[in-house]
Amino acid sequence: MEFVELAKLRRSAINFQSDVKISESELQEIFEIVKTHPSSYNIQSTHYYVVTSEEKKALVKEASLGQHKTLTASATIIVCGDTEGYKEAPRLYEGMKLLGILDECEYHETIEAINNLYSNDLTLREEDNIRNACLSAMLFMLAAKDKGWDTCPMHVKNVPIIKEIYHIPENHQPVLMIPIGKSVKEKIRPRGYRKPVGEFVHFVD
Amino acid sequence: MEFVELAKLRRSAINFQSDVKISESELQEIFEIVKTHPSSYNIQSTHYYVVTSEEKKALVKEASLGQHKTLTASATIIVCGDTEGYKEAPRLYEGMKLLGILDECEYHETIEAINNLYSNDLTLREEDNIRNACLSAMLFMLAAKDKGWDTCPMHVKNVPIIKEIYHIPENHQPVLMIPIGKSVKEKIRPRGYRKPVGEFVHFVD
Repeated sequence: MEFVELAKLRRSAINFQSDVKISESELQEIFEIVKTHPSSYNIQSTHYYVVTSEEKKALVKEASLGQHKTLTASATIIVCGDTEGYKEAPRLYEGMKLLGILDECEYHETIEAINNLYSNDLTLREEDNIRNACLSAMLFMLAAKDKGWDTCPMHVKNVPIIKEIYHIPENHQPVLMIPIGKSVKEKIRPRGYRKPVGEFVHFVD
Repeated sequence: MEFVELAKLRRSAINFQSDVKISESELQEIFEIVKTHPSSYNIQSTHYYVVTSEEKKALVKEASLGQHKTLTASATIIVCGDTEGYKEAPRLYEGMKLLGILDECEYHETIEAINNLYSNDLTLREEDNIRNACLSAMLFMLAAKDKGWDTCPMHVKNVPIIKEIYHIPENHQPVLMIPIGKSVKEKIRPRGYRKPVGEFVHFVD
């Protein structure tokens, strides 16, 4: 679909058709697009945890203040950031060194810059987890809509219980919950009011 | 442009052609798309501060560890979140009440839920500033590319100095810096390595 049309069509779903299933291969096609998202130093520390079974979704609903979308969605996804993700830098940059895109010196400078930035700054790692996960998540929601699926970004409530349900490791920090499915048609209401551009864009002299 | 093609074409720019100007009306066209981004409770607390003058960009470069992209870009933008943005909820929801999309009771419940969530939780407001700003920023970078402009998301360094240069008020929290311009062609290198989907997507039984 044309991007401008897609951006205008994408809406946060109010509720989902509970009888619609989504397959792993359909989700994988969406994630092939998500892969292109930018991340700090291209560390790609964003992870997606996906549940589709009725049993798991029921547990997620219970942990999420009973929000019905988490159960009626075809899949309910937790987007996480890996607090230790920067440690993967040598592996991620190895290929660019082998291909000659980075020379030995640039490679070492890059790894050193990443370590200097993150190794002693847990707050920055946690903030960057949110930054990177949300850049990625917006692309996910657009890619989903492009393939006919609706989504809705939500806060993650009861993080420890959610981490247990999804088997999320200690160092993966939940950032957003995104149910994905097919919107219930009769529940579509007009898009919420949007501020005019002049209220959120400031040209500075 | 087709969304899938656009997502694949969008790349973080390495450097920009320093002689290219961008007009306010071109930026406004991009922001008309950005308007559609989702935000927590549709509060729309993301703000964009834009400088285009050589003088201002030189100051930004000086505050940004000398990173050349901040100067060679056609515009250098700071994306912020408004820590007090939730207080706009009554005004933002007023229209939906007047149009009958929300009844009086739903309107009051919504405003109360927003106040309960945010009024005593500065940490959540700051985290949500990052979440909302980055959902918005990804849409900005795609909308820019769709109109032929390149971008690159960056950390904001020296926040107090940057806030002064851009006249950013106390309650607006800088989240990302995004220079926008036309990529220098000869400096394009292959896209950084991306992990296969199986490494960042986890199907949970």
